[in-house]
Amino acid sequence: MAGSSFGNILKVTTFGESHGNGIGAVLDGFPAGMDLCEEDIMAYMRRRKPGQSAISTARKEDDEVEILSGVFNGKTEGTPIALLIRNNDQHSSDYEQMKTIYRPGHADFTYDAKYGFRDYRGGGRSSGRETAARVAAGAIAAKFLKEMGIDLLFYTAAIGDVMISRERFNRKFLDSSVTGMPDVVANQQAMGLIEGLRAEGDSVGGIIEGHISGVPAGIGDPVFNKLDANLAKALMSIGAVKSVSIGNGIFAAYNKGSDNNDQFEADENGNAVKKTNRAGGIYGGITDGSDIVLSCAVKPTPSIAKDQTAIDVNGKAVPLNVKGRHDPCIVPRAVVVAECMSALTILDAMLMNMTARAENVRRFYAGKDSE
Amino acid sequence: MAGSSFGNILKVTTFGESHGNGIGAVLDGFPAGMDLCEEDIMAYMRRRKPGQSAISTARKEDDEVEILSGVFNGKTEGTPIALLIRNNDQHSSDYEQMKTIYRPGHADFTYDAKYGFRDYRGGGRSSGRETAARVAAGAIAAKFLKEMGIDLLFYTAAIGDVMISRERFNRKFLDSSVTGMPDVVANQQAMGLIEGLRAEGDSVGGIIEGHISGVPAGIGDPVFNKLDANLAKALMSIGAVKSVSIGNGIFAAYNKGSDNNDQFEADENGNAVKKTNRAGGIYGGITDGSDIVLSCAVKPTPSIAKDQTAIDVNGKAVPLNVKGRHDPCIVPRAVVVAECMSALTILDAMLMNMTARAENVRRFYAGKDSE
Amino acid sequence: MAGSSFGNILKVTTFGESHGNGIGAVLDGFPAGMDLCEEDIMAYMRRRKPGQSAISTARKEDDEVEILSGVFNGKTEGTPIALLIRNNDQHSSDYEQMKTIYRPGHADFTYDAKYGFRDYRGGGRSSGRETAARVAAGAIAAKFLKEMGIDLLFYTAAIGDVMISRERFNRKFLDSSVTGMPDVVANQQAMGLIEGLRAEGDSVGGIIEGHISGVPAGIGDPVFNKLDANLAKALMSIGAVKSVSIGNGIFAAYNKGSDNNDQFEADENGNAVKKTNRAGGIYGGITDGSDIVLSCAVKPTPSIAKDQTAIDVNGKAVPLNVKGRHDPCIVPRAVVVAECMSALTILDAMLMNMTARAENVRRFYAGKDSE
Amino acid sequence: MAGSSFGNILKVTTFGESHGNGIGAVLDGFPAGMDLCEEDIMAYMRRRKPGQSAISTARKEDDEVEILSGVFNGKTEGTPIALLIRNNDQHSSDYEQMKTIYRPGHADFTYDAKYGFRDYRGGGRSSGRETAARVAAGAIAAKFLKEMGIDLLFYTAAIGDVMISRERFNRKFLDSSVTGMPDVVANQQAMGLIEGLRAEGDSVGGIIEGHISGVPAGIGDPVFNKLDANLAKALMSIGAVKSVSIGNGIFAAYNKGSDNNDQFEADENGNAVKKTNRAGGIYGGITDGSDIVLSCAVKPTPSIAKDQTAIDVNGKAVPLNVKGRHDPCIVPRAVVVAECMSALTILDAMLMNMTARAENVRRFYAGKDSE
Repeated sequence: MAGSSFGNILKVTTFGESHGNGIGAVLDGFPAGMDLCEEDIMAYMRRRKPGQSAISTARKEDDEVEILSGVFNGKTEGTPIALLIRNNDQHSSDYEQMKTIYRPGHADFTYDAKYGFRDYRGGGRSSGRETAARVAAGAIAAKFLKEMGIDLLFYTAAIGDVMISRERFNRKFLDSSVTGMPDVVANQQAMGLIEGLRAEGDSVGGIIEGHISGVPAGIGDPVFNKLDANLAKALMSIGAVKSVSIGNGIFAAYNKGSDNNDQFEADENGNAVKKTNRAGGIYGGITDGSDIVLSCAVKPTPSIAKDQTAIDVNGKAVPLNVKGRHDPCIVPRAVVVAECMSALTILDAMLMNMTARAENVRRFYAGKDSE
Repeated sequence: MAGSSFGNILKVTTFGESHGNGIGAVLDGFPAGMDLCEEDIMAYMRRRKPGQSAISTARKEDDEVEILSGVFNGKTEGTPIALLIRNNDQHSSDYEQMKTIYRPGHADFTYDAKYGFRDYRGGGRSSGRETAARVAAGAIAAKFLKEMGIDLLFYTAAIGDVMISRERFNRKFLDSSVTGMPDVVANQQAMGLIEGLRAEGDSVGGIIEGHISGVPAGIGDPVFNKLDANLAKALMSIGAVKSVSIGNGIFAAYNKGSDNNDQFEADENGNAVKKTNRAGGIYGGITDGSDIVLSCAVKPTPSIAKDQTAIDVNGKAVPLNVKGRHDPCIVPRAVVVAECMSALTILDAMLMNMTARAENVRRFYAGKDSE
Repeated sequence: MAGSSFGNILKVTTFGESHGNGIGAVLDGFPAGMDLCEEDIMAYMRRRKPGQSAISTARKEDDEVEILSGVFNGKTEGTPIALLIRNNDQHSSDYEQMKTIYRPGHADFTYDAKYGFRDYRGGGRSSGRETAARVAAGAIAAKFLKEMGIDLLFYTAAIGDVMISRERFNRKFLDSSVTGMPDVVANQQAMGLIEGLRAEGDSVGGIIEGHISGVPAGIGDPVFNKLDANLAKALMSIGAVKSVSIGNGIFAAYNKGSDNNDQFEADENGNAVKKTNRAGGIYGGITDGSDIVLSCAVKPTPSIAKDQTAIDVNGKAVPLNVKGRHDPCIVPRAVVVAECMSALTILDAMLMNMTARAENVRRFYAGKDSE
Repeated sequence: MAGSSFGNILKVTTFGESHGNGIGAVLDGFPAGMDLCEEDIMAYMRRRKPGQSAISTARKEDDEVEILSGVFNGKTEGTPIALLIRNNDQHSSDYEQMKTIYRPGHADFTYDAKYGFRDYRGGGRSSGRETAARVAAGAIAAKFLKEMGIDLLFYTAAIGDVMISRERFNRKFLDSSVTGMPDVVANQQAMGLIEGLRAEGDSVGGIIEGHISGVPAGIGDPVFNKLDANLAKALMSIGAVKSVSIGNGIFAAYNKGSDNNDQFEADENGNAVKKTNRAGGIYGGITDGSDIVLSCAVKPTPSIAKDQTAIDVNGKAVPLNVKGRHDPCIVPRAVVVAECMSALTILDAMLMNMTARAENVRRFYAGKDSE
C-alpha cells in the first residue's frame, strides 16, 4: 500500500503538493446519515490557518474546502467524501533557487533520493501544507465523536522551555490563546520567546498534549492495531513530530512498578476507584474508559531566516538564506492537526469495535428479515 | 483489518495465547531464495529467552520454533513462512484466582470490556509471551537485512535512573551484558538496582535505543507511511512501550531551529558533510542514508509481588498478591523485540521502495521476454 | 500485500505446501463468544476429504484440524484462530521426477518463473491441498452464518455434459450423493461418465452452483468491494475455477433489458412482489434480501494418467506419464471449498455493514458509559 | 476497508456521485518519472464518452479531466495523482420522481436498505458514470504498460446474439467500430439490433473480450491474490458485469483433462512449443508469458423506455416509465472500462512481483551506498 492512505474501516487518502493545483482528501467508510456542511469543516480549518497573528507565517491560505462528493441534502451518504482545497497563494518563483539545493532539516534530498526528482516548490508533497487535508477529513471524524459525547481537548503544553502550569490550566482561554496554551501566563511568556526568535530569524519547537474523554471501554485491537500503536503512527506521521507518548510516556521508564501501576482503592461502599491514570486510558492497546492521554514533541520549523550551509545536488556545500514566509513556531497550528489525526484514529477503532462480539453481530441482524 | 497483522508487502500475522496450545506467526511476502533454517531463528529467540539470569523470570520457555511452511531445501520459497512455538511450561492453575479479578497495570479489564470474556490464564493474548512470535518472524527479516549490509544495533540505554554512558559504550560487551546495556559499569549498577527491587517485590522500567546503519537513502513513503510513523507503530505496539522517539525525539521540542537542523559544512574539497544527525536519519518520512536512530520507553512490569488493591468483576476493591514468576525488569528481554519489529518495518519499506521509480520498473522488466 | 490473506474485517491467512510439515490458516477478526470446537470444523473437512469413493483419489488425508489459538473454554476469543493440519500421507519420492519437468496444466513453470525455484513435491503451494486450509477457516464463518439463519446450499450442477435437472432437485440426496449433485439420476449418469474417464486415465470438469438465502438486504459495499466482486475473487482464487457468474451470469449478455430486469407485480393488496431473481440477489454490489445465486466453472484435473508431452527446465519437449493418485473429477470435493469461500466473503461483508449508518453507530455506543 | 479503493502497491480510490459536484480518482503508488499529461488521459476518456453515435445516450459528458496533483513538469512524482472530473450536464430535476421509487434492475432499493437514504439523482454512486473515474486512473496504468511493450486489446465480442467471427477479426476497424466489434459485418448486424431495440424502448447486453500480450511470465501471486482472481474482482466490480471468465472459461467445465490441458509438442530442435492457450496465460494465478485472455458478460441497461412496474418506498407496486437519456447498449462504452480495470490490476501485480526474489532485492540495493 502506498503511503497516502490511513485507517481500516474509516480510511482517509490525501493528495496534493504545496504549489500544485490543489490538495485534498477522500474519506471513505464514513457512516451515512450524519449532518455535514462545509462550515463544519471550516471551523477546524481556521484553527490551522496561518497568518493569524504576529507569530505565524504571513502566507495567506484561505483554505476554502469544497465537498466534492459523499454528501447529499446535508447528510453524509456512506460513500467517499472527497474534499478539495485549491492552492491559491502560490509564489512559486520564491522557490526557483531550491531546484538544485537541499535545505537542512527538510525532505528535499530524501525525496530526490527516492524518486529521482521532486517538486521543489515549497516542499511539494512534504510541505506542512499537506496537513490541511488531514484537518479537513479529521474535522468530520471529530464532529461525529462529539455527537457521541466524546470530548477532544488538545493544546500546546510547551514551547521551547516555556511550559504550561497545571494550576493555571484554563480551557476557556484556548479560543483566544495565540500559542494554543491553556494558560494566560505561559501564553504570554511563549509569545515573548517566539517574538525574540523571529527577530533573530530563528524558530522553536514544543509539546502538544491531548486528553480525549468519553471514549467507552473496549476500544482498540490487540497486538499490532493497539489503539496506542495506531495513535503513535497517526501522530508521528505529522511531519514535524519527533516523539509520541501515551499516558506518562517516558516517565514510565524511570518508575517502579508499584508507582507506575494505576492502583485501585475502595470507596465507602467497597467499590474500586482507580486512583491514577498513568497508563493514559489504554491497557493492552484497548481503552479502559478513562481519559486517553497522549502527547507529542514537535520540532522547530527548519525554515529559518539565518544563514545556513546547505548541500547541492552535486554534493557541494553552498550558503543558504531561506526566503519566504515561515512560522517561527509551528506548534500552535499543529495542535488541530494532532487532534484531527487522533479523531480519525479513534473513530476508526470505534467502528472496528462494533464487530468484536458475536452477540452484538447477532443482535444487529436479528431484527432484519431478508426479503 | 483485525489487529494481528502488520506490514504491507511483507506482512506478519501472529496468533496465540499465553497458555493455549501454541503461539506463532505467518510471514507472507518474504522474497524467495534466502537461506533459512530454524537455527537462524533460534539465535534471536535465545536473546528473548527468560530464565537466563537472576534478574529474569524463572519460567522456562524453551521456545522451540518449528518452520511449518515456506522453506524448501533450506531456502525461502516466496510463500508464507509459518512458525509455530508450542506452549509447554504452563501452570494454568496459578491463574485460577484471576478469573474474577482485574489486576492493576494489566489488560484484564479491557479485554473483558471488549470481548465479554477473556482467557485469564497468564494474560492470554495480551501476555508478553506474544512477542516471541514477533521475534521469530523478525529474525528472518533481520537476517536478510544483515545480508544486505544493514547493521541493527539495539541495546538497553537506561534502567530506572541508571543510564549508560556514551564514553563507556562497549558493543562487544553486549553479548554478555545481563541487562542489555553496552556499558560494564552501568550494567553492574542496573543489576544492583534490579536485585534490590526484586527483593522488595517490585519492578522497574527503562529505555531501549536502536541504531540502524547501512539503510540506503530513499526508504520510506510519504505522508502516512513515513518510515518513522511505521516504526512508531511497530514499537508502540509492543505491550510495555509507552513512548517512541526518532532522532533527538523530545529534545527537538526544546531546541531552536538553528540548533535542531542538521547543518552541513564544507570539507577541504568543498563537499558538504552533515555535522549532526539529530533527525535520526529520516526526513519527511524517508531515509537520508545516515543511521536511523530511535528509542522507546518501557514501563516497569505491572506484575509485582507487593500487596496491591485490584478491582473484581463486580467493581469491588479486592486485595491482590500476584503469584507466579515475573521479571522485575522486562527491558533486557524487550531489546530483541524492538530490534525485530524495526527489522520487519525497515525491510517492508525497502521492498516497497523498489517500485518508486518508473525507470527501475522498466529496467526490471526490460530483460524479460514473454513466452 | 502478499497473496495469502483474504478479507477486510474478517481476514483469513493461509499457509503451507502440499508436502511440507503442515498447512493451516489464521482467521483474525472473528467475533468473540461463538461456541467452537474442532468437530465443528471436521464436519466440513470431511466433505472435502478424498478417498471417499471410487471416483476420488486414493490419497488418504485424515486432515485432523488442531485449533492452536483463539478459542478458550469452547468459545471464540476475538483473537486470531489459528488452525493447523499436519501433512501425513506424503509420498514425496513420487515427485522426484518432477524436479526438472513442468507438467501441462499445472503451475510448475509459473512458480519457477516467479520465484526462481519451487517445491516440486505435489505442486507445493499451488496444490489443491491448499484448499483444506480454506475449508477449515470457512467452516467457522459458515457456522456463524447458520446461527444467524443464513442457509448455504452449494452443489454440483454439472459434470462434463451431465447436468442436473431442476425438476429432480433433491436437497436431501446431497448427503449421500457421491458427485455432489442433488439429483439421483444425474448423479448416476455422472458417476458413469467419471468411471469411464478414469479407465481411460482422463478427467473431467464441471459446474458448481450456490444459493445463499437469509442474507439481509444492504450487505456489500459500493464500487470495488461490491459483494459480487468479492465473491468473484473468492471463487476465482480457487485453483481450478475458470469462470464465475452471479445470477443469470453470461445469459444476461444475450437478454433484452425488458427480459433481464427483475420486474415487480402487484399482489392482491397492491404490494410489489419481485417476479424473478435474475440478478442473483445483488444490485450495485449490495444485497436486496433475495437469495444470492452464483456459479463457477471448474476445469478438469490436469493430472491425468494419459501420455502427455511436457516441457523441461531447458525448454525441451519430454514425454510425461504422471504417476500418483489423482481425482478424475475434482468438482464434488470443490463444492465445499466454494461454499466456505462464499461464507468468509459474506460474513466479512456483514461485519463491514454494521458501521454503514451513523444512527447504528450512535445507538451501539449510546448505552456505553466510559468509566 | 471501505469499498472505493482497489489495489495493493498501486491503489486507486474513486469518489463521486452522478449528479454531485464531481467525480474523480486518486491513484497512489504510481512510480515516479513517467511522462504524463491530461491528453494522455483524455484519449481514453473519449473512448468511454457517450453521445458519440446513434446507439448511445445523448447525455453530453465532456468529462474534462483535471490533474490536481502528483505530476510536476510533465512527469509523475511518485505521490498521489488526483484526478477531477466535474459534473456539468446535470438534469437533476429529471430524477425527482425517483425519490420514492425503486427502479427494477437498479441499486435504488439496495442503497436505501444499506444507508437509510440515497442520492436518487441518476443513481448517485451506483451510476455507471462512476466508471469515468476508473478510466481516468486506468489510462495512466495502461500508458505505462504500453511503454513496457504490453499490448491491451479489448473489444466487444458479442451484442445480444450477434457474435464476432474469428475469421473476420479486424483490429484496425476497432477505431471506427461504433459497437467496439473488430468485425465489419458483426458491427453492422449489431447496430441493426440496437437500433431496433432502441425503437422499442428496450436494451441489450453483450460480451467483452480482452487479450493482453507481452506480460512476462511470473506475474501474479499465490492463493488469494492470483492474477485471475484479482482480474475477476476488477471486472465484476463494474456495475453491469455479471460473469467473468479466464481463458476458455466455462468451456473448461465440459472438457476432458486431455483436451483442456495446454499440451506441448516438440519443434524440429526438440524444443517444447505450447500448442494451445486454453488456460488464458495464467496457471496457479501466475502468468506463463502467453497472452492473458479473459472475457466478461455485460447485462443490458436496466433503464429502458418501456412501461415497467416498480416498487415504491412503501412496498407498493407502481407503474414506471423511465425518463432520461440512456444507452440501449452499454457494451461499447464498457470496453475501455474493462481494459482500464485490467491495466490497473496487471500493473499492480507487476509492481508486486519485483520483490518476489531475494536475489533481485539484493541486486537492487547492492549498488546503493548509504551516506
